[in-house]
Amino acid sequence: MEKRSPKRRELKVSDYVNGVLDRDRAIIARTITLVESNSPRHMEMAQEVLKELMPYTGNSIRIGITGVPGVGKSTLIEAFGTMLCERDHKVAVLAVDPSSNVSRGSILGDKTRMDKLSRNKNAFVRPSPSSGTLGGVARKSRETLLVCEAAGFDVIIVETVGVGQSEITVRSMVDFFLVLMLTGAGDELQGMKKGVMEMADAIFINKADGPNKQAAMLAKTEYNRLLHFLPSATEGWETKAFTVSALTGEGVPEIWKVIQRFLALGKEHGFFEQRRKEQAMNWFDSLIEGQILASFYQNSLVKERLPQFKKKVLTGELTPTLAVTQLLSLYEQQQN
Amino acid sequence: MEKRSPKRRELKVSDYVNGVLDRDRAIIARTITLVESNSPRHMEMAQEVLKELMPYTGNSIRIGITGVPGVGKSTLIEAFGTMLCERDHKVAVLAVDPSSNVSRGSILGDKTRMDKLSRNKNAFVRPSPSSGTLGGVARKSRETLLVCEAAGFDVIIVETVGVGQSEITVRSMVDFFLVLMLTGAGDELQGMKKGVMEMADAIFINKADGPNKQAAMLAKTEYNRLLHFLPSATEGWETKAFTVSALTGEGVPEIWKVIQRFLALGKEHGFFEQRRKEQAMNWFDSLIEGQILASFYQNSLVKERLPQFKKKVLTGELTPTLAVTQLLSLYEQQQN
Repeated sequence: MEKRSPKRRELKVSDYVNGVLDRDRAIIARTITLVESNSPRHMEMAQEVLKELMPYTGNSIRIGITGVPGVGKSTLIEAFGTMLCERDHKVAVLAVDPSSNVSRGSILGDKTRMDKLSRNKNAFVRPSPSSGTLGGVARKSRETLLVCEAAGFDVIIVETVGVGQSEITVRSMVDFFLVLMLTGAGDELQGMKKGVMEMADAIFINKADGPNKQAAMLAKTEYNRLLHFLPSATEGWETKAFTVSALTGEGVPEIWKVIQRFLALGKEHGFFEQRRKEQAMNWFDSLIEGQILASFYQNSLVKERLPQFKKKVLTGELTPTLAVTQLLSLYEQQQN
Repeated sequence: MEKRSPKRRELKVSDYVNGVLDRDRAIIARTITLVESNSPRHMEMAQEVLKELMPYTGNSIRIGITGVPGVGKSTLIEAFGTMLCERDHKVAVLAVDPSSNVSRGSILGDKTRMDKLSRNKNAFVRPSPSSGTLGGVARKSRETLLVCEAAGFDVIIVETVGVGQSEITVRSMVDFFLVLMLTGAGDELQGMKKGVMEMADAIFINKADGPNKQAAMLAKTEYNRLLHFLPSATEGWETKAFTVSALTGEGVPEIWKVIQRFLALGKEHGFFEQRRKEQAMNWFDSLIEGQILASFYQNSLVKERLPQFKKKVLTGELTPTLAVTQLLSLYEQQQN
């Protein structure tokens, strides 16, 4: 048998399910690969596996972490995750990075990052699935999250970059959303997508160490002032800013304390359960709508005629309403 | 002939078109009524009229104004609009108020507001269309805006309330978006929808008069500090805060100065034209998607089965992906 690529045994649905429930790392990895596959046969099998795993899901705290490239996400997650592992938590780290299939490489870095955490027996680090669309990445990440929960990981960290649409996607699949910042708040924020601040359940200003510490403290004060003006990301919870240093470890335990306060309050006041229900419904709705619209836009007649109608709208030859009426009437004629 | 409700002559498409182009106030009003009608015959006729009017549209500055109830929108628009009329501008004031058909009455007040402006020969004040959905109101308001442009109004003010989704709708149909505020900024913002601040091209703090003036100046400073942290609503334009008093008129000319600076810069740097194109495309896309999804959700099978699938998702019996696959497969079977 060729050593570098041994022919792997085909697994049955029950093999996947039992392997995940037994927390067999190789099987977990293969289950995620199955979930990430775009082959119809694999997708069907993945759904059968997930259906069996569903009763074992939901028992983790799902934490989203975002921040612009260079903010130190990986280093912080490594420090935070290692601390949790030492406290006997089981930590899975997933990534949502729609750029990861682009040839210029992933924004979130290569697989060698979080080297220490990757080797911890209590941790499981998985890079972002490669996919053409954010929607595809999102579906895969959500289902990977469920696989990890079924495998008994009780802390799931979903990391993403603070650019584009991906942080909205991650916000929609986690309980708690942490935004990582650097000092120089105002300037940095200009590079962030609108509304990211308003999605945060906590802001941590990273690299609060050495000569940078004082500036980080000042930035914390500034952010807290700003947060006072913004509506809460989670009703019933007050978002605050903190400082942290992934380098020295100072402030890392505070992250977990904040999350535990959030959990306690969220379970007491019901916003934790409420958000999960809303997320499940929103996910369901967006899947339906995505598929309905995709089948419309992929229709050959629509593909052919849409650009002409758009052009007529842009030149003012047709009102959008009239253009849509005409296009849909062509589409309906073709359907019947 | 009965004096109180004379039977009006039926107008032809050309009557509407010519009346609007001649700026015949009675015909403009009837054209808008046609545009707002939900009867299929009227809707079809409205589209014919609009198609003829399209070449005469686009030559106004479209200004959105929002603010929570009590902020003094109507009084300010009356002062601002009157000033513009005195400078020989033609000013149309429209409203987007999805609550206006609810029995408890419109958030934007009744038709007697802006009494002075309504009687100005250079002005045209139209209350919000009544409709069951924001989507319906939005479509009608966009088309009413086009009618007003074709009638030669060169300043179109679209007013809305700073709650719910309506300000996103208004933002998507105007060139310049003005958010009206009061002092006590932090507290007030808590009642505003997330992201409204980030949509603003200017913030005006109203009621900066008498004993309130000093507080308004302080609020202005606070808002400017806050704005420094937020990404620009319009790339290439720096959003700033100002004070204004609709009562004394102080600061009202400043509104127009700011808008003119915005226009000059926007035409120089291209963001004005760019935004209009994007708005037309977004409108077109959202009309298509709205209709495609509506026909799915109104399908009798979907109506019947959707709640069961949602329930199974909520209880964790099915993954959202599997639920959607099953529902869409039932739907497709029925379609074929």
